Amino acid sequence: MNFHTRKWIKPEDLNPNGTLFGGRLLEWIDEEAALYAIIQLENPRTVTKYMSEIDFRASAKKGDIIEIGLEVVKFGTASLTLKCEVRNKMTHEVIITIERIVMVGLGDDGKAKPHGKKEVEYVKDRLEKSKE
Amino acid sequence: MNFHTRKWIKPEDLNPNGTLFGGRLLEWIDEEAALYAIIQLENPRTVTKYMSEIDFRASAKKGDIIEIGLEVVKFGTASLTLKCEVRNKMTHEVIITIERIVMVGLGDDGKAKPHGKKEVEYVKDRLEKSKE
Amino acid sequence: MNFHTRKWIKPEDLNPNGTLFGGRLLEWIDEEAALYAIIQLENPRTVTKYMSEIDFRASAKKGDIIEIGLEVVKFGTASLTLKCEVRNKMTHEVIITIERIVMVGLGDDGKAKPHGKKEVEYVKDRLEKSKE
Amino acid sequence: MNFHTRKWIKPEDLNPNGTLFGGRLLEWIDEEAALYAIIQLENPRTVTKYMSEIDFRASAKKGDIIEIGLEVVKFGTASLTLKCEVRNKMTHEVIITIERIVMVGLGDDGKAKPHGKKEVEYVKDRLEKSKE
Amino acid sequence: MNFHTRKWIKPEDLNPNGTLFGGRLLEWIDEEAALYAIIQLENPRTVTKYMSEIDFRASAKKGDIIEIGLEVVKFGTASLTLKCEVRNKMTHEVIITIERIVMVGLGDDGKAKPHGKKEVEYVKDRLEKSKE
Amino acid sequence: MNFHTRKWIKPEDLNPNGTLFGGRLLEWIDEEAALYAIIQLENPRTVTKYMSEIDFRASAKKGDIIEIGLEVVKFGTASLTLKCEVRNKMTHEVIITIERIVMVGLGDDGKAKPHGKKEVEYVKDRLEKSKE
Repeated sequence: MNFHTRKWIKPEDLNPNGTLFGGRLLEWIDEEAALYAIIQLENPRTVTKYMSEIDFRASAKKGDIIEIGLEVVKFGTASLTLKCEVRNKMTHEVIITIERIVMVGLGDDGKAKPHGKKEVEYVKDRLEKSKE
Repeated sequence: MNFHTRKWIKPEDLNPNGTLFGGRLLEWIDEEAALYAIIQLENPRTVTKYMSEIDFRASAKKGDIIEIGLEVVKFGTASLTLKCEVRNKMTHEVIITIERIVMVGLGDDGKAKPHGKKEVEYVKDRLEKSKE
Repeated sequence: MNFHTRKWIKPEDLNPNGTLFGGRLLEWIDEEAALYAIIQLENPRTVTKYMSEIDFRASAKKGDIIEIGLEVVKFGTASLTLKCEVRNKMTHEVIITIERIVMVGLGDDGKAKPHGKKEVEYVKDRLEKSKE
Repeated sequence: MNFHTRKWIKPEDLNPNGTLFGGRLLEWIDEEAALYAIIQLENPRTVTKYMSEIDFRASAKKGDIIEIGLEVVKFGTASLTLKCEVRNKMTHEVIITIERIVMVGLGDDGKAKPHGKKEVEYVKDRLEKSKE
Repeated sequence: MNFHTRKWIKPEDLNPNGTLFGGRLLEWIDEEAALYAIIQLENPRTVTKYMSEIDFRASAKKGDIIEIGLEVVKFGTASLTLKCEVRNKMTHEVIITIERIVMVGLGDDGKAKPHGKKEVEYVKDRLEKSKE
Repeated sequence: MNFHTRKWIKPEDLNPNGTLFGGRLLEWIDEEAALYAIIQLENPRTVTKYMSEIDFRASAKKGDIIEIGLEVVKFGTASLTLKCEVRNKMTHEVIITIERIVMVGLGDDGKAKPHGKKEVEYVKDRLEKSKE
């Protein structure tokens, strides 16, 4: 699993009990899944269709640094299924895990659009290929 | 199911495609579940422990008004299980459904604390009882 | 008066003294009045035209849950006058009262547009009527 | 009337109709009144107690620049009454006027605390006086 | 140097260490420079092109009031160079200084557009001139 | 240079001209530099002390995905100097470059505190070392 985006827990991210507000964490995960899928499917109109059950295993507190990891589970016809794990950057303790997040690429008509992708591609390789 | 809180979809709530950002919706649901559980369990230190799978059935667009509904599924020893549905206020179209959101009340030691509740209580009744 | 929307006071809602920031409260009231009027007038282009004097009777602190109540005072030709009360959900203590908030529905030309409404309607009834 | 703080209307400040969200404007006014009163009363625990009626005379749109003006109406024993006007910086068109905003300085006990001030003071003069 | 816009440091503006988050301060400066340049160049499509080195000389804490000062360094053909200083309103202590912020006015084609301005103009004078 | 954190440009990140608001970008860079330095110096009280000149080379628009890269330039006694580059994730076009961002770790007395670090360490290695 690749961990890219990191967040620094600031006062505006806390619930009234002084721990990371769960809703804020879900917001961050959804954004990360969306941008990961957009890059892979090369389709900016990619939306969240489904999330499997979410287990809040640990919390985080003000000043903690967390990182959001994603990996591809499956390429569907028009969809991409991701697995997500969020962990504390300093201790590697797992905060949350979601086994399946299904993202779907849409066409101009707003309906699911086949993407023809079968494996993870790196933008760097795409850029080099386009220079050939 | 009782629908209380309403939201007006403003530009700051949109994803780049111009529809309601899914992460924002999850943030609103988590806040609503937390405050509902705090009222029922009469414990301000109540946290989200688990959400069952989430199906994004429809989206919403700028200017739409949505309402968030919750109902109690079960009172556990230290927990409260809720069902959630979010719908479009004007058309009653369902946007999202979550069958089980488990909220847990914590004690001062940060551990789950039995709450002794078995059914939904209304604050109004509590206030009247306390006057007797 | 019907109390719908609820808010959980989070750190981002506080002023530097640690109590609910009055400006945030006014923002919440204005949104609630706007969406209430949009539903009643069935016109998404509804704007706030006037608020009568505002008395800040009590404050709220981090972790408190408040609810925003509205009721119709009068239907004008193009306007809707509302009364607003915000109270603490747990104690029913009143935080703020505004006797009159005047909302006006606009036409495509940006000018006040008569709405023909004379009493409160419930969306549920409208939906059932439209099925007949 | 002195106009200090300026705001640039950005997408996050708009209502779904694409004009300045009234609630955002009220939030800005409340912050400006608070900081103005804190400076005059030299008391960081200063809160908004009352606002007289608010007339939304004009709106503003994305990209507009507005400025918020305040002037002292009266020094009370523990309070300061301000008049507020918000206008479009480019055209000087008035957007909103509030005749009286009453701010009250509190003591450590949370109760109104006499401030002994009778006229507007400038921080610059205070700093020079303290050097004498 | 003229100091216009003021900010009241609220919990949402703090980093996890409880002092003013530097990124928030840079955001405020960029907005102030943009709106100042828009007013002077009379061109709403004005963007930040360059900032010279930034020295964080002091911090600020919750409840502090800061003010942002700007003055014109130079009018270029299509640009406006500003100097910025942010200071604590109560003590006049300097928080940050930026010697040169270069703002550029763009034409409809997105390219730098000559503005023909050579000195600071006040909107008031422009309004009076337009009445003649 | 390692690129970790990614951002999806949403409506709330735009200036009124519809391109990425420069202040928002600076806010993101400052947060990324802070958390990177906190991880390296193993000191949560790490603050931004200095940024060298900033050249806004290109902008970004709604829906773009950007990534923020950092690399260590130098370890000082109490400081860490970083180089920053932000680029468009899809095209690798450079948006902004900052040659030196100086972060300083503070002690409990709020003064610069020597950190004894001389090279980049990976948290994974630290965790393994602590198990030995």
